[in-house]
Amino acid sequence: MSEIKSDQDWMQFAIAEAAAAIYRTRPNPAVGCVIVKNNQIVGRGATAPVGGPHAEVFALQQAGEQARGATAYVTLEPCAHYGRTPPCAKGLVEAGIARVVIACSDPNPLVAGKGVQILKDAGIDVLQGVCEIPAAAQNKGFLKAIATGAPYVRLKIASSLDGRTAMASGESKWITGSEARLDVQHWRAISGAVITGIETVLADDCQLNVRQLKNIENLNGIVQPKRVILDRQGRLPLSAKILAHAETVMVMGPFRQELADLGVTQLDVQPLKILLQTLSQQYQIYDVLVEAGVTLSTAFLQGNLVDELISYIAPSFLGRSARAMFNAEFDRMAEQLRFKLIDVAQVGSDVRLRLIPSQETL
Amino acid sequence: MSEIKSDQDWMQFAIAEAAAAIYRTRPNPAVGCVIVKNNQIVGRGATAPVGGPHAEVFALQQAGEQARGATAYVTLEPCAHYGRTPPCAKGLVEAGIARVVIACSDPNPLVAGKGVQILKDAGIDVLQGVCEIPAAAQNKGFLKAIATGAPYVRLKIASSLDGRTAMASGESKWITGSEARLDVQHWRAISGAVITGIETVLADDCQLNVRQLKNIENLNGIVQPKRVILDRQGRLPLSAKILAHAETVMVMGPFRQELADLGVTQLDVQPLKILLQTLSQQYQIYDVLVEAGVTLSTAFLQGNLVDELISYIAPSFLGRSARAMFNAEFDRMAEQLRFKLIDVAQVGSDVRLRLIPSQETL
Repeated sequence: MSEIKSDQDWMQFAIAEAAAAIYRTRPNPAVGCVIVKNNQIVGRGATAPVGGPHAEVFALQQAGEQARGATAYVTLEPCAHYGRTPPCAKGLVEAGIARVVIACSDPNPLVAGKGVQILKDAGIDVLQGVCEIPAAAQNKGFLKAIATGAPYVRLKIASSLDGRTAMASGESKWITGSEARLDVQHWRAISGAVITGIETVLADDCQLNVRQLKNIENLNGIVQPKRVILDRQGRLPLSAKILAHAETVMVMGPFRQELADLGVTQLDVQPLKILLQTLSQQYQIYDVLVEAGVTLSTAFLQGNLVDELISYIAPSFLGRSARAMFNAEFDRMAEQLRFKLIDVAQVGSDVRLRLIPSQETL
Repeated sequence: MSEIKSDQDWMQFAIAEAAAAIYRTRPNPAVGCVIVKNNQIVGRGATAPVGGPHAEVFALQQAGEQARGATAYVTLEPCAHYGRTPPCAKGLVEAGIARVVIACSDPNPLVAGKGVQILKDAGIDVLQGVCEIPAAAQNKGFLKAIATGAPYVRLKIASSLDGRTAMASGESKWITGSEARLDVQHWRAISGAVITGIETVLADDCQLNVRQLKNIENLNGIVQPKRVILDRQGRLPLSAKILAHAETVMVMGPFRQELADLGVTQLDVQPLKILLQTLSQQYQIYDVLVEAGVTLSTAFLQGNLVDELISYIAPSFLGRSARAMFNAEFDRMAEQLRFKLIDVAQVGSDVRLRLIPSQETL
């Protein structure tokens, strides 16, 4: 018989189940579940693509009769409501589960605790908050958006060591290397939408979709992010490559019938902060990746709209006449925008920093 | 009896001996030696401060009669010449050492191999190149300077994420945090000289000496770096704090009697490349740290005079009107200065990158 594992150990298996599903469940959160009996996993599951069952259902199916008297580990509080699927909390009760260990509570303040209450009312032993931090990291957008009505916003910037993104002429190929560009695809793939500006679309004729992912051969089943283009003057050409999949394109700008005909979703012009709320509340877009030029990137930064900055730095100097990565003008050090490092990594020949806004005063 | 160790394992002990001496042996290289008999260390030593014995002498003294038939591990080829001390190769022969394992060869092409030859002529078994890379990293300047006549040049730059070093007004306090500033002291302490420009001295009234080192309480015995000020117009005020220890100050500029009276070493105005050769060949300065403003830093970068760039990046944005860290102007991406990352680390709240020039073509 194998070594006795702790609740934390088993929860790591549930987190691994969720991790394998992260690109496929949107807008639902990626949840993992393992059912453990006699120190062995007898059932495991993760959230299915939208409309399919939740993690607990798969795990219970696999466990069958062995679920009776077993412990269930779930990365998110089991749901208590009849939605697309019946409530998971009831499923756990009916299967005869004796103990439920939960990482994250339901982020919706109106229903948080209801799933747990169903379990407790049925005499099930419930333990909450086990491995909450790594489990929460898997669903940052969902957890934030359900709690606040606004999505989790990641801003990606690629620059040189001296803080430049392109030459004055606009020439900008190969600032960062291929591994950094592949890494960006991950952030797109976990996002409900990629936001960019019309200038970037006009300059690069970019598509901003997911074309390749590390360690994943088959991209079927990957939920592609919406591509949201901020185009206040209605300049998006109908020949733009990004319109090849017009049904996943959203344009914020004046209404254009020809875009409607292509199936593009059109949004009224609105302030960035309101736009983010609209995406979250009306379109279930909970994770947003901003990949834009300096004007829009600076607007997100200056507006305190960035939850996480993902900064790729190429080991090169482009010189003082090259384009700056950040456009605001400050006179005093006290005005600087401060961040806090949460992760530092070498990605191919480049560096990737992950940062969150800092509350620290200077 | 303990587990049998490999030559690599034992050499790591010799490298550790050298590491403990790195701040104290200049201009001599920091060398470590352990003598091993019957799978036990019977003697260990490192280079003494200048004028004192080399590592092998201490290790042999400690080993005494046990040296007979033992193996000596040394991080640098034992010397073959009568200098301040008698040749170590002869000492190893006389002590009856049976086998010598060496990490780095002598970098001087005129004497390389002579120490090994003395050992071999005496019938000693010699193995070379064991752990050469980590051992060479301890004496980069010495190895480069003896081989080429030019020192190993490290350029330190501290900047914001957007590549700025100060506000337009010159305000620049607290770009990087206290841990990054402490980290800089290490690079000063392994340097024979810190080079700066007169503008930096006038603006900051800096001293550029070693005042604190991580994990070292007592700085007695630390060899302070020379401070080299580039002052082509002879503007250094006699009240500058850096002159508090004038005997370790060097000024490149027009001759001034009042500086001579203070004990300052004065150097003729010469191109940077020649200055570096002068420091190495005439003053035994083998490691140089450049801590300067943007003009001088850019000149070193543009002149391909930097062997290693040490870049501290603070997680903040200072804005487009703040001072750029790099002053050259390029029109095309192909002109960019490319580096290769060799190390990425978080240092306190900041990031430290270490980079070497890249040969890669774009």
